[in-house]
Amino acid sequence: MFNLISTPNGISDVEGFFCGATNVGMRPDPNQGDMAFIRSNTPCDVTALFTSNRFQASPIVHFKRYEEGFQTNFLLMNAKNANAMTGEAGVEDIDTLLEALSKKITLLNPIMSSTGVIGYRLPVEKMKKGFEQFDFQAKDSQATARAIMTTDSFEKSLSYRVELPSGEYFHIAGICKGAGMINPSMATMLCFIVTDANIPKEDMKPLLQEATEGSFNRISVDGDTSTNDTVMLLSNHARSSYDKEAFSKVLKEMLFDFAMMILRDGEGSNKVVAFEVKGAKTQEEAQRASMALSNSLLVKTALFGEDPNWGRIASTIGASGIACDPEKLSIYYDDLCIYSATQRELDAQREAQANAIMKQAEFTVTCHLGMGDSSYTSYGCDLSYEYVKINAEYRT
Amino acid sequence: MFNLISTPNGISDVEGFFCGATNVGMRPDPNQGDMAFIRSNTPCDVTALFTSNRFQASPIVHFKRYEEGFQTNFLLMNAKNANAMTGEAGVEDIDTLLEALSKKITLLNPIMSSTGVIGYRLPVEKMKKGFEQFDFQAKDSQATARAIMTTDSFEKSLSYRVELPSGEYFHIAGICKGAGMINPSMATMLCFIVTDANIPKEDMKPLLQEATEGSFNRISVDGDTSTNDTVMLLSNHARSSYDKEAFSKVLKEMLFDFAMMILRDGEGSNKVVAFEVKGAKTQEEAQRASMALSNSLLVKTALFGEDPNWGRIASTIGASGIACDPEKLSIYYDDLCIYSATQRELDAQREAQANAIMKQAEFTVTCHLGMGDSSYTSYGCDLSYEYVKINAEYRT
Repeated sequence: MFNLISTPNGISDVEGFFCGATNVGMRPDPNQGDMAFIRSNTPCDVTALFTSNRFQASPIVHFKRYEEGFQTNFLLMNAKNANAMTGEAGVEDIDTLLEALSKKITLLNPIMSSTGVIGYRLPVEKMKKGFEQFDFQAKDSQATARAIMTTDSFEKSLSYRVELPSGEYFHIAGICKGAGMINPSMATMLCFIVTDANIPKEDMKPLLQEATEGSFNRISVDGDTSTNDTVMLLSNHARSSYDKEAFSKVLKEMLFDFAMMILRDGEGSNKVVAFEVKGAKTQEEAQRASMALSNSLLVKTALFGEDPNWGRIASTIGASGIACDPEKLSIYYDDLCIYSATQRELDAQREAQANAIMKQAEFTVTCHLGMGDSSYTSYGCDLSYEYVKINAEYRT
Repeated sequence: MFNLISTPNGISDVEGFFCGATNVGMRPDPNQGDMAFIRSNTPCDVTALFTSNRFQASPIVHFKRYEEGFQTNFLLMNAKNANAMTGEAGVEDIDTLLEALSKKITLLNPIMSSTGVIGYRLPVEKMKKGFEQFDFQAKDSQATARAIMTTDSFEKSLSYRVELPSGEYFHIAGICKGAGMINPSMATMLCFIVTDANIPKEDMKPLLQEATEGSFNRISVDGDTSTNDTVMLLSNHARSSYDKEAFSKVLKEMLFDFAMMILRDGEGSNKVVAFEVKGAKTQEEAQRASMALSNSLLVKTALFGEDPNWGRIASTIGASGIACDPEKLSIYYDDLCIYSATQRELDAQREAQANAIMKQAEFTVTCHLGMGDSSYTSYGCDLSYEYVKINAEYRT
């Protein structure tokens, strides 16, 4: 048992952490940053999960060159340029930047994270000049969250104080970016979580993995996976308190909330839909069917059209290659059965009810397969004209 | 060696075959049929390849109830209703229809094929009445091809006389429908090929499989696979001539041409792109990478935007899970290298050249992986606003 209190100032509410942003001219709007930092005044343990894409961006290559178990005190971030597919030169650019930065502030194994267009070198000279503008004592979490946005339409930030029954407390806060190109096994999303809890190093990776499995790995905007995806946890142990169960629970909720924010901010998306597959033969099959649904173009466009075309749901289940039987299948929109072997065609009344459910900003599609006991839920969004527009014109 | 002569009248040019269509009120426009037939005045050998979707539509279930190696003389087709997910009643409806039809014309193991919306029973009474309007002596291939269209914007028909060096000849002709929901391993596509060649029964399935592998199994409009996909070959042996090599070559070309027609008619598509993956470690990996490209939403929208964003190509290759290395990869649009490890950023000149290539109605994206000797080509199209519109409003 613990109390969870939302705090107003994001990362700035976590003891010993500082953060800020500046604009170095990569983003046209000078009022929004394009380069940012998060730092701690004491060394942090760090753990990170990265994209499954084989072409990992330079910041990820750079991170992995540190020895397992390293500590850091500085994270440099930028938007508009992913520093991906830039080869060894891309990694050297990071070294050059961090070397220049070390003239301004004492660095311990500094790390970098980038998001934006693939295939272009970082504007190193501009960025070096930008270091002059950094206020390293800043606690400006909002500007930091805004600086890492790309196609995001709103910044994503969450922060909590966790009060334990003993009266002790710790903080956990995070910022996140992501809107499109989101896929099970992550995407063009970055998520940085910082905490002052006294979390043992060995708890960090498993808890982050578990929380990611239940959140970012279950969402799909368009089935693509980027070169830069990162979920990172930094802990500076500034406070002496920690409770594993409480920490795990809050971390899971936080990452799930961020994942839902990404879906709500899905490029041009208007609604978030949970695809719950029940009664599958195996867990793997439940997952495969659920993700086939959240990734299907025809399902996504039917959601946008608010068309209760359950045939597309059924067809997608059938095409996913799992064990299934149309006579055992039933499909629900929220609590409304829209297909079962004894009730196939939608009459006008149920069609109207289904239509009303689909007009909601969030609802659940449940498929009972009737083949076994395994279940899985993934989350998707609709596909609109706006998605096509954003992605046809992304670079320009 | 043989001469291939295109003939003007489609299926009607194949000896012993008749075909025609009528409108029974399923399609609003009375000038376009919604029910059609192809028949032969002598028994036909038949072979068919069906969807890999686990939920196979009633006509497919009905077909499979005949004993392997059966002969037929009649194929009944309809559009607007897929007779899928309709359970045993859907198969009984077919029996009822074919029983009624047998009062009008002598039937030998008649078969049926349907396309349209999933989940509704066929309008059996309307269709029975439609049998009165069939002219069983008709040779109206165009009306037949038009009757099976759904979201197709043009009818798809090809017919040839194949002249062998001996002076003998045979005919091969086909009709096809399909525009969206097209996926490797077929989709809401129907394709019926008829021939009067004296093809041995045992050649039919392997030749059809081989031709399908090189055509329908390599195209993707949206990565979805329907419940009704069918490719069928009917041969009535009306002529005594046959040459395996010639027949195989013509069948392959014909199915490939139909596949390209489907892509050109992809729902809202404006261009057809070949995705050639070379230098893969294995054939399976070449195929996986190629199909990842033709299915990627981000690649498709970049094609629509005519944006030479090779980062999306690279990212999709990297995400496909195959063995690859950014230092060994090179990417070409037609003959223009747009990425290699020694030439990463697009300068203005190459960007303009790439842009000009992308404005073509057809072009090739080639990815050299540099990992081995295997290659594979699949074919895709762009994704436009129109696709979203068509699929958001499909049922209405």
